[in-house]
Amino acid sequence: MNRELAEKIRKVTPYTPGEQPKKKGIIKLNTNENPYPPSEKIREAIQEINDDTSRLRLYPDPDSSILKEALARHFGNGLSKKNFFTGVGSDDVLGMAFLAFFNGNEPVLFPDITYSFYEVWAELFNVKTKISNLDENMRLVKEDFLKNEKLGGIVIANPNAPTGLCEPVAFIKEVALAHPECLLIVDEAYVDFGGESAVSLVNELPNLLVAQTFSKSRSLAGLRIGYAVGNEELVAALEAVRYSYNSYTMNMPVQLMGSAILADEEYFNLTVKKIVNERERTKKRLKDLGFSFPDSKTNFIFVKHEKLSGEYIFNELKKRKIYVRHFKADKIKEYNRITIGTPEQMDKLIDALVEIVAV
Amino acid sequence: MNRELAEKIRKVTPYTPGEQPKKKGIIKLNTNENPYPPSEKIREAIQEINDDTSRLRLYPDPDSSILKEALARHFGNGLSKKNFFTGVGSDDVLGMAFLAFFNGNEPVLFPDITYSFYEVWAELFNVKTKISNLDENMRLVKEDFLKNEKLGGIVIANPNAPTGLCEPVAFIKEVALAHPECLLIVDEAYVDFGGESAVSLVNELPNLLVAQTFSKSRSLAGLRIGYAVGNEELVAALEAVRYSYNSYTMNMPVQLMGSAILADEEYFNLTVKKIVNERERTKKRLKDLGFSFPDSKTNFIFVKHEKLSGEYIFNELKKRKIYVRHFKADKIKEYNRITIGTPEQMDKLIDALVEIVAV
Repeated sequence: MNRELAEKIRKVTPYTPGEQPKKKGIIKLNTNENPYPPSEKIREAIQEINDDTSRLRLYPDPDSSILKEALARHFGNGLSKKNFFTGVGSDDVLGMAFLAFFNGNEPVLFPDITYSFYEVWAELFNVKTKISNLDENMRLVKEDFLKNEKLGGIVIANPNAPTGLCEPVAFIKEVALAHPECLLIVDEAYVDFGGESAVSLVNELPNLLVAQTFSKSRSLAGLRIGYAVGNEELVAALEAVRYSYNSYTMNMPVQLMGSAILADEEYFNLTVKKIVNERERTKKRLKDLGFSFPDSKTNFIFVKHEKLSGEYIFNELKKRKIYVRHFKADKIKEYNRITIGTPEQMDKLIDALVEIVAV
Repeated sequence: MNRELAEKIRKVTPYTPGEQPKKKGIIKLNTNENPYPPSEKIREAIQEINDDTSRLRLYPDPDSSILKEALARHFGNGLSKKNFFTGVGSDDVLGMAFLAFFNGNEPVLFPDITYSFYEVWAELFNVKTKISNLDENMRLVKEDFLKNEKLGGIVIANPNAPTGLCEPVAFIKEVALAHPECLLIVDEAYVDFGGESAVSLVNELPNLLVAQTFSKSRSLAGLRIGYAVGNEELVAALEAVRYSYNSYTMNMPVQLMGSAILADEEYFNLTVKKIVNERERTKKRLKDLGFSFPDSKTNFIFVKHEKLSGEYIFNELKKRKIYVRHFKADKIKEYNRITIGTPEQMDKLIDALVEIVAV
């Protein structure tokens, strides 16, 4: 490539997503997907699309009204459509929030061990960062978030990934109040599995934006639906930036399918409960095999073995066609993040681990 | 909003998309949608989704392989999957290309009258611009694109919007060769209606990126599928930036539906031909009513009346439930951009215009 042209290309260190193997017969516990299918209600939306495919010739509603209205009904609590922003997965929502709100001179604060996309967006958009190191128990160091200093922004994944640990919503409130000069993003991708949500605080705290997703608890990673909840002014500012990038981000089928499944609370509660039960059962069995882990409130467990290395376990599981996630960062390289699957999948995982630790 | 927080919000002037009225009974000729439904092949993909909704629980292929492979087969000509980049409409593709490639110190060149999103992305990403004014016939001033000067990038919509005028591909080649120091983006959103495509040049010209869309000629505005074609190195650089923003931009249904319809060339050719025929018929009738216009090679005509103002015609049509697009920029405020609809819709448009010009 021409040198001058090459110099004009933005320097990035892309996020590496977990493997999406195309082979069959793999037990896929590596990207925190839900082991259960989405609600059957989704078929109503699919039927509606099939009944009138000619609607696809028209641009979708740029404001995703039906989806936002369904979200507002779902959350209730005085929230309206104008409190919601939707995006192509919560990655799109969070990336757009970085672009929209993190333009100050002060650094944006987040932990060293957290969703690794935060530092990728920071580099992409030239955002200065300040890193708070998790303590020896993998917990947030709260003082770092409550210091009397000006920040450019704050991002807290709650529950945190890949640790699975959750902070009480009272702490989130403290942080927002301590830093009125900047936006606090709370990334609640995993909140439905046992975390405490800050959504009810968005109209009380003018600098709080909460992000959630349909990818985990709602079994719809394949559809790419994320959303943010915030006060109307924040959402309007985020929408203005989004309209400056792409007017129509949410396609028509996704708007229909996303709003359809929100109507099925019963199924949602049932699958979440099954996953939580399986998580707790798995914790006990992992402990018996010599694993330790932070006390996850998510659909994954972040495990370290008393004797075997993280990489060894990762590779041994892979040989047995069980995919989990291993990160290379020094502080967590002895860990693997294991998604909670069905009881049958977790039985196979435990069988494999029994074999592996017996070496 | 807290003043310090407000100061951290990115300053933008969002693009204003054409109205998407929710009322029934409107003849919608304002956003260049295709009046014909998409190919029936799309139902095969819808069926496939309905047959196994549990696949939606998994993340989609982050590389959109089936869609890229279908595009490579469609274009042939030695192009492979690695020559294609896909996005959420061509807006996502173009916006991502601005972010990825326009990071030099020199300005990015495009015409004053063109797709107005270019200046929106330039502002969003702090890209310096240089504007070439169209001549009195609404044509590109070719010398501006061939000057012996260093540029940060070049964007040419070909055919141009909203003029509808097309430049020969030989000119595109000249521009690319004259400016090896920067990327040339050719936005071919409307090329299928009679333009000359530069796609066959991408492996010959290392700085050429061609963007196209499923929204117009393929009747799928509702799905949001755009793509870029370029040499492997350019596409890899664009993918790296995209993976730094959102790993999974194309959802699973869209990958299936998009690749399904590419198999139906016959239907595609038929609908394009119907639209082109109707465009030519409409041109004659508009001329008889005192309208003049550049000689469009797209699915719209950009018309000015010899006596009546652009705004007057816009409003009179709207009263009659016919929506066209009016832009307020001084140089084009006497014009309206009229999308080519079905013969029946265009008959109604002409009937309305007969009434309006009779005043």
